[in-house]
This record gives sequence, structure tokens and C-alpha cells, in this order.
Amino acid sequence: MNEGPKHTLKLRRVAIDTYKENVAYLHRDCHLYRSEGFQALAKVEVSGEGGRRPVLAVLNVVDDDSITRPEQLGLSEDAFAQLGLPEGAAATLAHARPPASLQAVHRKIAGERLDYPDYEAITRDIVEHRYAKIEMAAFLVACTEAGMERDEVLHLTRAMAASGEQLNWGEPLVADKHCIGGIPGNRTSMLVVPIVAAHGMFIPKTSSRAITSPAGTADTMEVLAQVELPPHRLNDIVRRQRGCLAWGGTARLAPVDDILISVERPLSMDSPGQLVASILAKKLAAGATHLLIDIPMGPTAKVRNQLDALRLRKLFEFVGDRVGLHLEVVITDGHQPIGRGIGPVLEARDVMQVLENDPEQPRDLREKALQLASRILEFDPDVRGGQGYTLARDILESGRALEKMRAIIEAQGTSDVSREVGHLCDTINAERDGSVAGIDNQQMARIARLAGAPMDKGAGVDLYRKIGDKISRGEPLYAIHAEFDADFAFACEAAKQNSGFRLGP
Amino acid sequence: MNEGPKHTLKLRRVAIDTYKENVAYLHRDCHLYRSEGFQALAKVEVSGEGGRRPVLAVLNVVDDDSITRPEQLGLSEDAFAQLGLPEGAAATLAHARPPASLQAVHRKIAGERLDYPDYEAITRDIVEHRYAKIEMAAFLVACTEAGMERDEVLHLTRAMAASGEQLNWGEPLVADKHCIGGIPGNRTSMLVVPIVAAHGMFIPKTSSRAITSPAGTADTMEVLAQVELPPHRLNDIVRRQRGCLAWGGTARLAPVDDILISVERPLSMDSPGQLVASILAKKLAAGATHLLIDIPMGPTAKVRNQLDALRLRKLFEFVGDRVGLHLEVVITDGHQPIGRGIGPVLEARDVMQVLENDPEQPRDLREKALQLASRILEFDPDVRGGQGYTLARDILESGRALEKMRAIIEAQGTSDVSREVGHLCDTINAERDGSVAGIDNQQMARIARLAGAPMDKGAGVDLYRKIGDKISRGEPLYAIHAEFDADFAFACEAAKQNSGFRLGP
Repeated sequence: MNEGPKHTLKLRRVAIDTYKENVAYLHRDCHLYRSEGFQALAKVEVSGEGGRRPVLAVLNVVDDDSITRPEQLGLSEDAFAQLGLPEGAAATLAHARPPASLQAVHRKIAGERLDYPDYEAITRDIVEHRYAKIEMAAFLVACTEAGMERDEVLHLTRAMAASGEQLNWGEPLVADKHCIGGIPGNRTSMLVVPIVAAHGMFIPKTSSRAITSPAGTADTMEVLAQVELPPHRLNDIVRRQRGCLAWGGTARLAPVDDILISVERPLSMDSPGQLVASILAKKLAAGATHLLIDIPMGPTAKVRNQLDALRLRKLFEFVGDRVGLHLEVVITDGHQPIGRGIGPVLEARDVMQVLENDPEQPRDLREKALQLASRILEFDPDVRGGQGYTLARDILESGRALEKMRAIIEAQGTSDVSREVGHLCDTINAERDGSVAGIDNQQMARIARLAGAPMDKGAGVDLYRKIGDKISRGEPLYAIHAEFDADFAFACEAAKQNSGFRLGP
Repeated sequence: MNEGPKHTLKLRRVAIDTYKENVAYLHRDCHLYRSEGFQALAKVEVSGEGGRRPVLAVLNVVDDDSITRPEQLGLSEDAFAQLGLPEGAAATLAHARPPASLQAVHRKIAGERLDYPDYEAITRDIVEHRYAKIEMAAFLVACTEAGMERDEVLHLTRAMAASGEQLNWGEPLVADKHCIGGIPGNRTSMLVVPIVAAHGMFIPKTSSRAITSPAGTADTMEVLAQVELPPHRLNDIVRRQRGCLAWGGTARLAPVDDILISVERPLSMDSPGQLVASILAKKLAAGATHLLIDIPMGPTAKVRNQLDALRLRKLFEFVGDRVGLHLEVVITDGHQPIGRGIGPVLEARDVMQVLENDPEQPRDLREKALQLASRILEFDPDVRGGQGYTLARDILESGRALEKMRAIIEAQGTSDVSREVGHLCDTINAERDGSVAGIDNQQMARIARLAGAPMDKGAGVDLYRKIGDKISRGEPLYAIHAEFDADFAFACEAAKQNSGFRLGP
């Protein structure tokens, strides 16, 4: 035997964002690449003295010294941060043992039913970045509707909730609401929270930013207030105001979900089992006790017919009951966008109009928010069944909801984001007389995104007409707002190809 | 409207080998990244004036000007080559439309049965690099044993065969053989081809290089002869010699298979349906009319029991009959490695010993090769049933097989690879008296790979004892050969932890 294998390399941060997939970059002339029989896309385990636990990564082979030199070990940004060592630190590289829970995934692929310990092991390995993207894809496909029983959705929900922190507010009733998404402009949370909190109910609402939509509640709320708050400040605010409207990304709640989403999205996988487990695990981890789920249904919504909506409702109820959530599901009208604005500034304007009882307010947004708020208010044992709606309307009309919203904004810190809409503006006009027969949610979202939403807060679409409205030839259907020329051109081009509006007689 | 979107970028080759997955690198400050709402891991379509057809790639976001600058569009090595434009050329970037055949994959995931046109569309989109790795993973998982009927395996086989070139030799009988793999040292093709070709049968055998094993037939043949031959030369050689032993990578036969393998391997997916379709599609495209399939069975082989072996045999027969192949399947002993050497030089030595009728030759390799050759010889209508074995033995013992092998080597071009075994050598010895009860195929392959095989031709393992042999304490079980210190140390360490040998009383 010789003096033993020389297998340390110098760590290097490679400034490439590989989005939730760790990548290690090894030079083709690196002696370890040769000797270890590594292969591009093989999974490797990187460790370093004094570093946090070893990091798993997929291998890319590099032929350019300016990216990684032969004596170096390059790591993509996330992976480098996870290892927690400085550049130049000594690191070692080994073939990664496949995560033990992959056996369970293979059993699932073969048609077996998995138990809670299986799902628990799988979610833990995913959170520890032991799964490659293709392995997550394999897991997700094996867990589609056809392949997953109700009990398994329950196991997965519990395992996902257990994969990160779990909040305990020490309150008897912690209310929350969630919409499965897909409807532009649908900013009911920003109305429901002030109404419900003004009544004194506890509703620590955290929301996500947009991933594929033109705005998430966090993006829109950010027009009015700070939304990225450290957990201890958020805690203070909720205790004092009984509610908040913050970004949920600072707490580590069901973190496995964020990782799985990075594969689900590009795959367009949206099986009911995954959807239910993902939503309920987050809410469970966030400490909710009472939850209202909004399922919009319509031809361009996520759920397109009554049968699918009912199936989904029953799956929510089955799992919700067993994890101890008081859960109600409402199936709502998802035929068209809610409100007028699509994009953060435009949506924030709609929300404030409703809170301010402005005569110009979008009535559909107000009505939907009151309906949802009434259901949550009736979670309160002291509210008589059937009285929720009147109560919600009183809170809104009296200005108490507006007052509560202002208090929440002040507590979170007012925003320095401009509330101006994008200065580039053009309208899309009716090509003939008629009435609006349909509005395509997906096309409207796409146009608003092309215009720059959610990154450019003032960008988006402002709807002048909704389904049923009469319109004459040449009158505007909606306006497109943008802040940059290129975005503006792309959005107008898309709207000209397909306006998203269908006109009837 | 303004002057229209400015959306061209300057092409740049990024010297990163991402192994069959195209990656586009865009700087975070690139205006297109901002405006288009691109997201890391989104699929994008890259095109350029005068370039070949657009290239699809997965997006990585870069924060380092030395990799890609804001006005540039970086492409990984494969993707750059596919686009076929020089660096600095103007390129445009757009959101990639998901390939139409993904609809079929989603139907398959939902449990539907797919037809030939579906499989044809899927394989075409994969060959055109329209599938991301996670999409291929989704397809593969949906097509596992549980999910794929026999007819679908047939459709997939035909679609894969049609995905590239298809050879037509113009011969009435084109013989071929294939082993499903998993047994180290199992170099029967290098004996079967000279025996069969010496008889005058037409056997244009092409083989693969090792991917996860310590040597493929192409790696071992390369010790003796050139194996990378342009199609027209290969054609000449086969016409004259009636056989060859070349690398199959120069022809574009069933190219979809090579792409799918890049996902199957890291996923350890090896469903019978995929295996059968992959092998038969390649053989069909290669123009074979008569095919012998070798399924080794044993506790550490790919197929571990009689039931699985029979199922696999029947699936091969079902598809083979319907695509018009005369196909025979033999289930062989896969309890231990075949021959003594594991690694290119050591295996080539074994093969030559058998051809030279050397008294030291490994009898198991000789015996297995004769059995397989006899089955192929009996494909010849002029060979009487049951006479194949005697005929094969005569060809081998008379030296005609050796003569044919020498002619093939000369025709392909002699190799300049050294036939020396690795100069670093150590033996692994029996820890007690006894007899060999078992040898683990996978552990022996692993040790040989760690020692440097197949890249270092002389590296590998030389077995001194096989199952049933008696051994005394301290006597060597096998030797490890390596060319480099680090490899040698890794291999010895692995062998000390687990020798791969099980001793009985």
C-alpha cells in the first residue's frame, strides 16, 4: 500500500444558480475525476473539515480553468452555502450512496402501498438534498392520483409537516385560509384577514410570492407594507394585531414542499394528492387549527368541472379530519379573474378600494371576500350560524376592516414601493359589438407576466370589462401597463395574438 | 408600440459537460432574464440565424461575468455543438413550448394505454432533445412493469428502432447475440463471433463500452484491435470477414436509447419493458434477422430467480416474434464472474487463451462460448439440430476460430494499447481454510472499477479461485492490478472491507 489516497480539493464557489439542485463542478483533468470513475450527472457527496453535514450534488464536468481548475472542487451557489465553508477550504469528494428511502420509491413504482415511515424517510432525504431532480420526478409520478390512496395522502401530509419547524401559537383557535390558485387578481386574503382580525379572531396569515402567476399575495401586500419579517417580529405583530399579511418564506415550514415544487412545476404535475398534502402540511406546520379552502372552478381554472372539484373537496376533508384540522372547503366561481387589476400595484388598488368602500370598487372582489370571511367568522363558537355574512359586511362597511388593515401595515412597516402603475400603457379594444362571453384566466396571467409582473410592481393588466358586460366595437377591454420597452412590446404582441377575451352576440 | 423587442444575445460556449442534458446559462442582469419572467430550470428554446434547428435547454442563472456576461447566452458543450453556430453569433431565446407528446406521457401517468403513434411522438421528441431529464424520468416511471402492457413494449420497440438509422445488409441471415449484462468477465462475444464467422455465417457484432461495469466488449476488444471504425469501413470488413467486433457508437442506431439510458442509470430503473425495448430496438435497427439473448441468472446477477427469468424470456419472445426477429433466449448460470480476468487487458488474455487452446484457459468461459455459439450455428438451415455444439468445438479446436479472430483484428487494425497488466499489484487472501461458496458479481465489478478499469486498460481483478474451489488460509483468492497509486489504494480498501468472496466449510 502507498501513503493513501490523495483526495482533497480546494473549494470554489461557482456563481451559477441551479435552482434547488446542487451541482458540483469538477475539471476533466482532476485526478479524482479520473481515478474514481465519476461520471457526469453522477451523484457525489462533498464534505469538508469544519463544514456542516456533507452536501450531495450532481456532477458536471468542466473543461475551462476559469470555471473550475483541476485542483478545485466547484459548487453551485446553493450547494456552496449549504456546506458553509470559505473558498479555498479543503474538501473531499466521494460517490454518494443512494438514499436508503429510494428503495421505498422503487416499491411505490412497483405498485406497493407505502406506510408513514416510508413517507417520513422520503421527505427527510429530500429535505437533506439527498434526492436528485430525476429521483424526485420518479417519486412524484409514482404518487399521482392513480397510484396514491387516501391513507397515503394522509401519511405524506404528516411527513411533510414534520419535515421542518412546527409553530404552536398557544391559542385555542388559529384561523387560516388558502386558495388553490389559478385565478388572476384573486386577492381575497388581503380583505379576509383585516375583517377576521378586526373581529378579534387570530389569523396569522403568511403567503407565498408568485412563481408562475403575475402576483402572489406577498407580492401585492408588499406594495403597501414590509412582508419579509423575521419570525420573532412576525410573532409580536400577530399577538398584538390578531392578524398579519406576511411572506411565509422566513419560517422553515414543510420545507420539503418548496423542493418538490421545483420539480412539479416544470413537469406540470398537479395531482390532487400532492396538492392536498402540500397545502395541509404547510398549514399544519404553521399551527392552524381552523382552515378554509377555496377551490375556484371554471373552464380555465385549475379545477374545471364539478366532479373534480367534489373529489378534491372530499380528499381535503378526509385528510383534514385526520390531522385534526377543522376544515371547510368552498367551491367558488373561477370563470374569470377576480377584481380588475392583475399585477401587484393594480391589485393593491382594488383591495384598498374595497376596504375604503369606494363606489368604484370591484364588486366581485368585495362579494367573494365577504363570503369567505363569513365562513371563517362562523368558526368562532360565539358567532351564530348564518350570521357570519352580516357580521363581515358590518366590519367592512363600518371602516373597522380598513382601520385593522392600516394597523397591520403600520405594524409590519409601511412599504417604500411606488404605487404608480407602469407608465407605458396601451389598451386592447373590442373588434366588434357584443358582450363578453368568456375571459381566459391563463392568457390574462400570461400577458400580465410578460408586461413585467410581479417583478415590476406597477406592471400588469387592468380589466375594464368582465363576463356579461356589453361592449361596442373599438371600446377598450383592458389596459396593459409596463415599465420597460421590451416587456411592453412582448405583452402587447401576446395580447394581439390572443386577447384572452371571447365576445358573444 | 416601440421599435420592437431587442432580444438577441451573443452566443458563448460554456465548457461544462452536462451529459446529455442541454443547459443554457443566462446572466442574472441580462435584460431578457428580467423581462421574460424566465426562471432557473425553465425550459428555453435557443435559435440563431443560419443555425441548425432550435435547441432546447434548461436554464441556469449565472452571477459571474467570467462564465457568461449579461449580453451573452451561454450554452453547455453538447447544446453548443447541436446549434452549430460559432461563438459570438446572434442568438435568440424564448420560452420553450412543452413538447406535444408530453400530453401522452401525462395520459400514461394517469393510467391510460398508449398506442404506437404516441410512442413514436415521444421517442421523436426525446431524440430532438425536447425532453428535460425530469420529463424523461416521468416517462420511464410511468412505463414500468406495472404500467406497461406487452403491446406497449412492442410499440415502444418499434418507435425506438425508427428513431434513427436502420441498416439493411442485404443478407438472408444476419446473426447477432446480446447478453443483458451484470456478469463481470463475461466476454463470450469475442469467442462466439470468430467461431460463427469462421463457419461463414454473417455476424456484424457491434458492442458498447462500459458505463457502470469494469469493461464492455468494445473496451476489451480495443486491447487487441481498433474498434472505432467509420460505418463504410465497418461495412467493408464485415462483407469480407463475415464478422466484426466493433464499437457501436459510430452508427446512429436507436439513438433515443442512449438518451433514455442517461436517466435510467442514475435512477437504477431497469424495468423489463424498457430493457426488452432497448435491446430489440438496437438489434432491429442494426439489421439483425436472427438473435440469441443471454440472460444470466444468479443471486448477484441482474435477474435473480427463475420466475423473473422466464417472464423476461417470454417478453423477449413476444416482441421478437412480432417485429420479425428469429429470436432465441438462453438462461445461463450467473452465480459468479465468467473467466478469470475482470478489466480489459485481463479479459483479452482470457479470450486469447481460449482461442489458442491454451491448457491454462478458463474452462467456464470456453464452455459458455461454445454453448452460445452452438445455438447461433443452428440458426443455419444447413446445420442439423443438435450438431451445433460439435461444430463449434471443431471450429475452436482446429484453430479456425483463432485464425478468424486474427483476420478480424488485422482488418479492423491492430491496437497500439499495451497488453501489460497494471504494475501495482496486491493479492486478497483467504482468512481461513474452506472452499469458495459464493462470489459477488457486483462487488468484484466495483473493485475492478476502483482499480481503474475500464479507463486504465491494465487495471482490474484476476480471479485465482472460483465457486467450489478448495482454499487454505493465507492463499490468494484474487489479485488487484492498478496503474495509479490513488486507484490502487481505493480498490484495496474496498476489497479489505468486503472481499466479495464467501467461504464455506
